[in-house]
Amino acid sequence: MYRTRVYYQDTDAGGVVYFANYLKLFEKSWFNYLLGIGISLPEWEKQGIFILVKKVSLDLLDKARYGEELEASSSISDVKNAQFTMNHAISRNGKAITRGETLMVCVDSTGKPIRMPGDFRKRLLACQESSATTT
Amino acid sequence: MYRTRVYYQDTDAGGVVYFANYLKLFEKSWFNYLLGIGISLPEWEKQGIFILVKKVSLDLLDKARYGEELEASSSISDVKNAQFTMNHAISRNGKAITRGETLMVCVDSTGKPIRMPGDFRKRLLACQESSATTT
Amino acid sequence: MYRTRVYYQDTDAGGVVYFANYLKLFEKSWFNYLLGIGISLPEWEKQGIFILVKKVSLDLLDKARYGEELEASSSISDVKNAQFTMNHAISRNGKAITRGETLMVCVDSTGKPIRMPGDFRKRLLACQESSATTT
Amino acid sequence: MYRTRVYYQDTDAGGVVYFANYLKLFEKSWFNYLLGIGISLPEWEKQGIFILVKKVSLDLLDKARYGEELEASSSISDVKNAQFTMNHAISRNGKAITRGETLMVCVDSTGKPIRMPGDFRKRLLACQESSATTT
Repeated sequence: MYRTRVYYQDTDAGGVVYFANYLKLFEKSWFNYLLGIGISLPEWEKQGIFILVKKVSLDLLDKARYGEELEASSSISDVKNAQFTMNHAISRNGKAITRGETLMVCVDSTGKPIRMPGDFRKRLLACQESSATTT
Repeated sequence: MYRTRVYYQDTDAGGVVYFANYLKLFEKSWFNYLLGIGISLPEWEKQGIFILVKKVSLDLLDKARYGEELEASSSISDVKNAQFTMNHAISRNGKAITRGETLMVCVDSTGKPIRMPGDFRKRLLACQESSATTT
Repeated sequence: MYRTRVYYQDTDAGGVVYFANYLKLFEKSWFNYLLGIGISLPEWEKQGIFILVKKVSLDLLDKARYGEELEASSSISDVKNAQFTMNHAISRNGKAITRGETLMVCVDSTGKPIRMPGDFRKRLLACQESSATTT
Repeated sequence: MYRTRVYYQDTDAGGVVYFANYLKLFEKSWFNYLLGIGISLPEWEKQGIFILVKKVSLDLLDKARYGEELEASSSISDVKNAQFTMNHAISRNGKAITRGETLMVCVDSTGKPIRMPGDFRKRLLACQESSATTT
């Protein structure tokens, strides 16, 4: 869960949050979600384990305006050997205004996909949503 | 067609273009593509016609680094009454490193979806890709 | 006071926070500082009172890296009739890594400088630093 | 000289270019200015020579809106052993709307200030503005 205001820097001349900036909010959401389940991405990087975004989808359901308080939440699905999917929602007053999905791949320092370390993967699996919600 | 370098502002600590910044490159690409077929988005806004992004998909195929020259190109498919799809590719030396799609909706100044003006839609239809490539 | 992590989106290929992004952190800092003294910028906008940045200075003292926790703080000086200065510092573990100043001007909806509303100005004056520190 | 449009991504809910985004335009301007005098920053990085921004000042004289064409230009002053100053102006139809200055420092890969390589410095000196304009 990541809470933030909408600042001027997030908006565009249409008066609402610029569409690409929702992806930045997704990053803040997944960073803090993973931290909450014991996965510190910066710490893993020090050990040569990097998580890259490979695919993204974004669905804009409603608009968000300057000063509004937003809440971003993430969850995990489809944990494989070298990749996993994260689902994100950004809400205002409990109602989703944006949804999205990111496919994350585990790579080494040269960018080559590698199996996720056991401890990393175990933590993801423990939080994985039931198959019913991931299909 | 929109050509640009990769500047520091486009990159992240991973040494490559930050994933969300590809969407900003998509915007520059579609703006100039549409301008090239006689559709100036800022001019249409003055007449109360706004184009919003409703859905986005993004596929990261390869990385781009500081100083590299990139080329973004866009095309049109699925022109409906109030919306159309744009397909984007970002290439380096003629090879795609990122692909994506944006669903664009035509709205009035209150944000309500409306039929595209005749002249606007006609220009889109003239550039629409053949059905073979859009399925 | 505004606390945040350094996310990938804040960094550049040099591995540190991209210089222009400190100004974004300044905005978050002044927004929350002003809110804390009873000035909600979005609420004032609804009444036709806008605060624009007119001048900025930025001093980069040290670097900040991915995952680090930063703290931004702001203060007020030189409150005049239509403008005021804000001083910002971004610290890591209590040590400033960036300092800056923004000259803020009060304008109406047409962008014309106007006298600050009495209540707005009174709140700024109450927090203004002593002359000793503002020279 | 760097020419660009104002895109949605550059603007904020005030309908104009977000103040911090002028610094991003400065970067594009200095990158291309330096390239034009034979200094490719990415190439120098491959040799372990990095140019960091140390101080910035920014003066907002007028606003820029969506779709407008802007022109950024840079010049050099105060070339010292390990640092130099760049002056930037962003214009619309030949009239400056933003001015700024960046102090650039030459560092090695560890971030330590170092003397600029001879060839690098010689090219800067050849373009340095006369003392009359730099004071």
